[in-house]
Amino acid sequence: MEIQYWFELFGTAFFAISGALSATEKSGTDWFGASFTGFITAIGGGSLRDVLLGSYPIVWIRDVNFVYAIFAGILVAKLFYGVLIRLRKTFFLFDTLGIALFTVVGTAKAVSLGVGNINGAIMGMFTAVLGGVIRDTLTNEIPVIFRREIYATACFAGALLYLLLDHLDVDFGWNLAVSGGLIVALRVLAVSYNWNLPQFKKR
Amino acid sequence: MEIQYWFELFGTAFFAISGALSATEKSGTDWFGASFTGFITAIGGGSLRDVLLGSYPIVWIRDVNFVYAIFAGILVAKLFYGVLIRLRKTFFLFDTLGIALFTVVGTAKAVSLGVGNINGAIMGMFTAVLGGVIRDTLTNEIPVIFRREIYATACFAGALLYLLLDHLDVDFGWNLAVSGGLIVALRVLAVSYNWNLPQFKKR
Amino acid sequence: MEIQYWFELFGTAFFAISGALSATEKSGTDWFGASFTGFITAIGGGSLRDVLLGSYPIVWIRDVNFVYAIFAGILVAKLFYGVLIRLRKTFFLFDTLGIALFTVVGTAKAVSLGVGNINGAIMGMFTAVLGGVIRDTLTNEIPVIFRREIYATACFAGALLYLLLDHLDVDFGWNLAVSGGLIVALRVLAVSYNWNLPQFKKR
Repeated sequence: MEIQYWFELFGTAFFAISGALSATEKSGTDWFGASFTGFITAIGGGSLRDVLLGSYPIVWIRDVNFVYAIFAGILVAKLFYGVLIRLRKTFFLFDTLGIALFTVVGTAKAVSLGVGNINGAIMGMFTAVLGGVIRDTLTNEIPVIFRREIYATACFAGALLYLLLDHLDVDFGWNLAVSGGLIVALRVLAVSYNWNLPQFKKR
Repeated sequence: MEIQYWFELFGTAFFAISGALSATEKSGTDWFGASFTGFITAIGGGSLRDVLLGSYPIVWIRDVNFVYAIFAGILVAKLFYGVLIRLRKTFFLFDTLGIALFTVVGTAKAVSLGVGNINGAIMGMFTAVLGGVIRDTLTNEIPVIFRREIYATACFAGALLYLLLDHLDVDFGWNLAVSGGLIVALRVLAVSYNWNLPQFKKR
Repeated sequence: MEIQYWFELFGTAFFAISGALSATEKSGTDWFGASFTGFITAIGGGSLRDVLLGSYPIVWIRDVNFVYAIFAGILVAKLFYGVLIRLRKTFFLFDTLGIALFTVVGTAKAVSLGVGNINGAIMGMFTAVLGGVIRDTLTNEIPVIFRREIYATACFAGALLYLLLDHLDVDFGWNLAVSGGLIVALRVLAVSYNWNLPQFKKR
């Protein structure tokens, strides 16, 4: 699990970068607003999952390394602001790796706490996307889950694949690679080919 | 309690329908956005009540039937979209039955966990209305509690009546009928006769 | 701790006044909307802290006096509406006393539950400012933490000073006075001299 721990720290830092950049681009905020938004984006999904599951202590409160990872992410966002904004495609890839990782980790945690399959997949998806939903609500944007391209749906599909492979006794590392890979692939294809889900109401 | 369980499943499905329709009408969202909003509307109030009370596991995480009820509600919203939108009055009635039921159930749960009367009534009202508040916040609408006609106030009045009758040892079924009936009556009268609460600040 | 208890009740009432006035000024709401916003503003930060820490029962649910303090605050806001709006400077002082008190109390509670220093300071700041963030999100305002003048940063600085003095075995009462005093001083100076934090992105 050693390597998973490092992945989680990096994923947390990536989310913090994403939040800090988003607040800054949207409203030209100061250091505090950017840091706060980065913080909430990074811890929002996991905290909400743990609160809904009653799983205490919440990860980042128990292990301050996650808070340091967030501070590091915010510093990186500040120092490399211009580069990061230009490297949108690279950045998109990091965000995608982040949601893929957190979906699998969140699903695994929920089922390890006795949650059933459907709710486990919902919890995994919540872990990945709710930080971004809170970020968008705070900055008065339309939440990411209402955007056009397939986003949370990819997480849900990946979570279901993870559960299937887990029932088939696939090793966690391979399962992370394959299920997370599905999320990344779906997301990359959705953006490249402009894949959308059908509208709820036909026109 | 058998019948109460079925009521709760139906109430959950009605809230999911309400959320899915609301997201669709507001922003023409896709399947995922409509489903997500339906889900949050249905579980928001009860989840927040359970989290505030520290009552674990949260109902819908323990009992996946509530999740199936939500899926069923979303499917009904999709299949009968046109009918439901035309049947606004019927729909208003379902929503009203939903908040009446959840107010009483939420109040009963809170006091069964040792919460006092005032806070129990507040918890009952939260159970009924906070799912809608989260729904409105997500879709950038003015939250339902700030709207004109008496809404949450009716729930609070019904919760207080429930507590009074409960102290008088009225049977739960009758209490649900009477206290829930008060909420329905207040709400129907408020909309029919355009009853408002006084403004906080006199003009 | 007797005197701290009274401080906390008064702080809660001040937050309720602030929330009721804010909702009324923003959208000319009715009694319920003003009361609900006052309630959420008063209990939001502390409830979120307790939920994140898994510290049950949440203060206001266990001790109904906090709810009465909120009702009293709302009544004061109603009766003295005109006076309070004119006395903006007095009111600003009350809000500042409120956040200073809640920062120190929240930090002390978090570390007493075994939370480390950094996260303890974050919890103290959350206690003070998140009620206002929820209030602003509900009323569709830009959240207070994104505003120009130093606000949450002052709370964070005060929380760190509290932790430092606590490690030096300074008595709680003195520590409250000094650390809370720092928050008040920073806030008053920031508003008087229009101190801002630097923008996250240089222009």
